[in-house]
Amino acid sequence: MAAPFTKEDLGGLVGSANLYWLKDMNQEELEILLPSVDCIFVHFWPKELDSENLEKMTRLSFIQSALAGVNHIPFGDLPSSVAVSSNAGGYSDEVGEFAWGLLLAAAKRIVKLNGAWKENQSKSPLELGREVVVLKDRVLGVLGYGGIGGSVARIGMAFGMKVIVLSRKRVVEGGLESLHGEQGLKTILSNCDALVLALPLTNSTKRMIGRKELMLMKKRAILVNVARAEIIDQEAIYDHLLQNKDFVYATDVWWMKDGRESYPPDLPFLGLENFIGTPHVSGPSAVVGKGPLKNALENLLRFANGLDPEKVVDRTDYT
Amino acid sequence: MAAPFTKEDLGGLVGSANLYWLKDMNQEELEILLPSVDCIFVHFWPKELDSENLEKMTRLSFIQSALAGVNHIPFGDLPSSVAVSSNAGGYSDEVGEFAWGLLLAAAKRIVKLNGAWKENQSKSPLELGREVVVLKDRVLGVLGYGGIGGSVARIGMAFGMKVIVLSRKRVVEGGLESLHGEQGLKTILSNCDALVLALPLTNSTKRMIGRKELMLMKKRAILVNVARAEIIDQEAIYDHLLQNKDFVYATDVWWMKDGRESYPPDLPFLGLENFIGTPHVSGPSAVVGKGPLKNALENLLRFANGLDPEKVVDRTDYT
Repeated sequence: MAAPFTKEDLGGLVGSANLYWLKDMNQEELEILLPSVDCIFVHFWPKELDSENLEKMTRLSFIQSALAGVNHIPFGDLPSSVAVSSNAGGYSDEVGEFAWGLLLAAAKRIVKLNGAWKENQSKSPLELGREVVVLKDRVLGVLGYGGIGGSVARIGMAFGMKVIVLSRKRVVEGGLESLHGEQGLKTILSNCDALVLALPLTNSTKRMIGRKELMLMKKRAILVNVARAEIIDQEAIYDHLLQNKDFVYATDVWWMKDGRESYPPDLPFLGLENFIGTPHVSGPSAVVGKGPLKNALENLLRFANGLDPEKVVDRTDYT
Repeated sequence: MAAPFTKEDLGGLVGSANLYWLKDMNQEELEILLPSVDCIFVHFWPKELDSENLEKMTRLSFIQSALAGVNHIPFGDLPSSVAVSSNAGGYSDEVGEFAWGLLLAAAKRIVKLNGAWKENQSKSPLELGREVVVLKDRVLGVLGYGGIGGSVARIGMAFGMKVIVLSRKRVVEGGLESLHGEQGLKTILSNCDALVLALPLTNSTKRMIGRKELMLMKKRAILVNVARAEIIDQEAIYDHLLQNKDFVYATDVWWMKDGRESYPPDLPFLGLENFIGTPHVSGPSAVVGKGPLKNALENLLRFANGLDPEKVVDRTDYT
């Protein structure tokens, strides 16, 4: 039951499961089918699966998300017996690369300086070059050390950066420093020259970056978001950008409105020279390569074959 | 005799040499000084040092360029006894980082997609995501394996790319493939998904990339230039961009006109969605950190102390 995948994409499940596509069904057919469904494979959450229809799914025991995040799953409508798995790892390299695209576009002022030559140069290249941030020997902070955070951190070391990650577990990996908890976050915020958010959106990460946290950061720091917009307080970051012209926020993710990731946001970010915003293409860029599909299919096959699915999330993080 | 460095910056030479600053002198003073000068340290070539004044510099034996390239040195006016050193290595990490900024801005369509959310979305993120180029497992070509090329190649490997470099010498370094000569160039052009130019501008690299070479490249390839614009034929790349909408040219360097790196160029590159152009800030971004200064000073001190300077260029490459 998933877009953007095709029936052909899910061919690997034939023989292990009976497949039904939500978009092929009307409500009448759904009424008959729903009580017999064991598992849902879902991209965005479909409006057809409202609380009323979910209540009819008495056999449901597993939901596999096609997205890396599961914050769109209606945990409140699901009995605690339903396991929900994220698609963590399916997007790691592609989203990691995209984070670096935003980070470097910000550091090198590429969006701002693109086409600067068309006008009569009021500033010389030497003056403009002073705006450019050199990353070597500087500090990269990465919040979240899952697949995406790990990919971002490894590339950071190749750029000769000192890398500090915020992780729930202690990370033992050459060259990396890992911190945790509130004090760890504070240390990272105040020391980093660039910060990449690679955390899931959970109860504890929602508005994790507000006025207080932004105040701890360096005046010329770069903040990159490839996770979820809601980890950052919208008004706080807008005001911070207004007041700190050398601070850059570069994001691929947007604050949700009415259940969708709606752009434009409430505040006029686009008018700011120290803001870069792309329309959530980092994840979709991975979908083309079928990596996320492969990752999710492996887990669906585990479930179909009677094994425990992997990457089951802790629902208390979301409810 | 150098901008953008200050007298303080050159303090390390005091005691080893008598320092004179060109900008402090009028023609009368120059007439007296020039016959006694052993060495010039130069950034851009100063108009005061025309062929007539150069003829008076009968003791001149060494010129140190503050720039990595030496294509701005008037070799034709200099006797063959004058050694000219490039500032190779002084800009490697900073320009290498900048090349990656351009490469990722191109691959991830960041300039093109920045602010795409402000308009009513005619395309979904899923559709837009298809335009984004994923680099992992793809082929990176690097033309030139000096300091900058080496820095670009090393980072490419961290992105999981297969890296092929064009080098005059055989490179023995883990994970890298090195090719040389015309056949090597052809192999790189036809196999690479991204190509970074990191060569000096010499007789043999001028217009190295013309129509024939561009035709060999993949339709969705990315071409990055942090070297010198003249390595690429201006009309050829313009026509190629017009005819291949998925091919991107991202450059920090511009074609010279009347002795200066003049923008805008003759052709309207800025109107093209598959073009990114920054106003030659990659080198200047290194100057801030004093790396190029340190590198040049070391060589100037060698000369002042009676040792042979390093990184002396082969003048037949330039005349």
